[in-house]
Amino acid sequence: MQIKDLRIHSIAMADPPLRSSYGLHQPYALRNIVEIESVDGITGIAETYGGENPRAALEKLREQILGADALRLLGDLQPLVHGEGGGSERSQVNLVPGENPLDTSARTYAAIETACLDLVGKSVGKPVCDLIGGRVREKVSFSAYLFYKHAGGGGEGEDARKDEYGECLTPESMVRQTQQMVQQYGFKSIKLKAGVLDPDQEIETIRQLRQEFGSDFPLRIDPNSAWKLETSLEVGRALKEELSNGGYLEDPCAGLDNLATLRQQLLSEGIDTPNASNVAITSFAHLPENVRKDAVQVILCDHHYWSGMRQVQHLGKICQVFDMGLSMHSNSHLGVSLMAMSHVAAATPHLTYDCDTHYPWQSAEDEIVEGGRIPIVDGFVEVTDKPGLGVTLDHDQLARGRERYEKCPYRKRDDTAEMRKYVDPNWERILPRW
Amino acid sequence: MQIKDLRIHSIAMADPPLRSSYGLHQPYALRNIVEIESVDGITGIAETYGGENPRAALEKLREQILGADALRLLGDLQPLVHGEGGGSERSQVNLVPGENPLDTSARTYAAIETACLDLVGKSVGKPVCDLIGGRVREKVSFSAYLFYKHAGGGGEGEDARKDEYGECLTPESMVRQTQQMVQQYGFKSIKLKAGVLDPDQEIETIRQLRQEFGSDFPLRIDPNSAWKLETSLEVGRALKEELSNGGYLEDPCAGLDNLATLRQQLLSEGIDTPNASNVAITSFAHLPENVRKDAVQVILCDHHYWSGMRQVQHLGKICQVFDMGLSMHSNSHLGVSLMAMSHVAAATPHLTYDCDTHYPWQSAEDEIVEGGRIPIVDGFVEVTDKPGLGVTLDHDQLARGRERYEKCPYRKRDDTAEMRKYVDPNWERILPRW
Repeated sequence: MQIKDLRIHSIAMADPPLRSSYGLHQPYALRNIVEIESVDGITGIAETYGGENPRAALEKLREQILGADALRLLGDLQPLVHGEGGGSERSQVNLVPGENPLDTSARTYAAIETACLDLVGKSVGKPVCDLIGGRVREKVSFSAYLFYKHAGGGGEGEDARKDEYGECLTPESMVRQTQQMVQQYGFKSIKLKAGVLDPDQEIETIRQLRQEFGSDFPLRIDPNSAWKLETSLEVGRALKEELSNGGYLEDPCAGLDNLATLRQQLLSEGIDTPNASNVAITSFAHLPENVRKDAVQVILCDHHYWSGMRQVQHLGKICQVFDMGLSMHSNSHLGVSLMAMSHVAAATPHLTYDCDTHYPWQSAEDEIVEGGRIPIVDGFVEVTDKPGLGVTLDHDQLARGRERYEKCPYRKRDDTAEMRKYVDPNWERILPRW
Repeated sequence: MQIKDLRIHSIAMADPPLRSSYGLHQPYALRNIVEIESVDGITGIAETYGGENPRAALEKLREQILGADALRLLGDLQPLVHGEGGGSERSQVNLVPGENPLDTSARTYAAIETACLDLVGKSVGKPVCDLIGGRVREKVSFSAYLFYKHAGGGGEGEDARKDEYGECLTPESMVRQTQQMVQQYGFKSIKLKAGVLDPDQEIETIRQLRQEFGSDFPLRIDPNSAWKLETSLEVGRALKEELSNGGYLEDPCAGLDNLATLRQQLLSEGIDTPNASNVAITSFAHLPENVRKDAVQVILCDHHYWSGMRQVQHLGKICQVFDMGLSMHSNSHLGVSLMAMSHVAAATPHLTYDCDTHYPWQSAEDEIVEGGRIPIVDGFVEVTDKPGLGVTLDHDQLARGRERYEKCPYRKRDDTAEMRKYVDPNWERILPRW
């Protein structure tokens, strides 16, 4: 399992015009695909954040990676694990995941770990989930991930996609979007990306979803810190019933102190809706303060920026020991990431919520894994007995992604620029907005 | 890596008459050696607590183990991980490690995990430390582990050992014991098992050790909860200087509340000697209370009863995140355990103290690994590139151990019985004694 080659493929994929408090998704989302090949000609793969910065961070390690043993490398690179520091200041309130300079090394380690574990798994004929501790579930459940969106299916020119879901900027159209996505993938829970419309409209959206899907369908709402504490309280009160039974308020407002006050106040009013976060809590350094303050009750893990799969397993154990829930965050991604997310989820006993995934927003035309799109059936991704991550690269499709990347005029995600271009030339991300 | 056979060998080994607050070591210490063999004829091994109860707990799983894949099994058996519960009541104040019914399943899982990881490592030609995350150190540092003892080298009749260290029941003889052990193994730190002599005598012992070995030689003292809070305070004050620079008070008194008060009081007097524990804290369930109370600042891990190597890695991460130190506990053991301890230590970044080991108290005549005793050089055990744990069984020596076990009249450790037999027929373990 000695490594003889490292290849990094920067690709672009069509992405629909999804809205969030960060702004508007650009017509292409960027990813980097990592290949690590052993002297035996076996290749491990990983998918990570796109564009130039993540690529440059990986390139910096080329000399250390080449010639190393894939397993030993994971020990040798341990200083990268959450090595950029930032302590409890390290948040994603103002930065989209993948563009936070404080977690560069965490993201870099994660990509290498995933590719190495895939390489090891493929070398010894064992699935990654079993290599990292043994699966505790055969299939991993994901949640429907709904976005307010403009009309358009993503991509531009010849790449312009069919708009599968249509414009969705009202409660009614969101119910239609959800019906469509749930019908296609069989999801059994719903997450609404909020912080886009007026809070009253978003409350109304959740109410209509509850009416349509009933109380067995957990509902989550995630405005990415767009609300003031007072607004968060109002939404918590207004959605007391709708967010009960497995729902949560995800990053309603910014900062652990606000979240702690929100929790305390809602509890004192008999409202037990937990706070979830992938913004206020993005690293292990946040956890002691969170345990002291009981600010966030559900942490969203993500092996892509929590320093990889084994660190996510540590996080899961910490959540179990300190009585927090564990869910999983997602970014726009393809099948390699989906399988990596599924493997780590399969080998993390204390995973207490369905995972997030953007996968329904990508399409077969951009998929880079051999055999095409990974099936999501009844909301589940199956973890098979195939070695490694269970997927290999379709090199024609990969070449296609590289071509799209070359044509793409930007090299990092910028949801603000896109808002200014298509919605409002003076748009700014105001936090809190409401 | 499908498992076709499970073999459990109950063995006995000569053990010197070592004293602790639990009483007196019996002439033989008991161990169970686990062999798990794959259909390919490769065998993974583990060493765990001895006697009938641990063996019976392993036997109970025979049907589930046979036919299973070694890696999948570790996921399937996850319900055993700290499965016996007991919550924050689960302590070892009154029970020697290995005889606590509340961690039976944790110990059983650990033995199976170790044997399976050794089997996997031997199957794919990789060391266990690299399989579980990659080594962060090439060799693992251990501490000298000193005991007050009666004359005698362990064993009885034809097995009676040469008494390498002689009787040691005074400060002066302890200095000699330490010189001898340090010279032979090159240890660079010292742990004194206390709770045996009057505290004044033990304070004097530590003072003489400090005088002999100097301030670069960290000193720890462990009376296994034999002292009252007031006595612990007095010892902490008396040994302010001697326990500084890497030392600790290990389980001076019983219970997290006492330990928290001790810490607070000593700190208020400008004494920063941390509390360590493997008695008050024996499971993950103790950690939240400990974090709240700041009772124990250094946790002693032990893969044998903390549900195995990966759980020890989780524990290490928790200690890192919540600003606690991590050391390693030991019981009387042979080379298989020593290597398992070394592998997990090598792959646990946040290990902040030299590990404990009883290994110097055992002898080549009882060693069961091929090639004989594992070298400890300059206080270090080297983690090599040999597959699995890096050791295999010497089956003749194993047979010898089984014979000794058959001749041995007891089936579980009982330090109280031994005290009554050889020291005082009315001896009782009184907690606190001083």
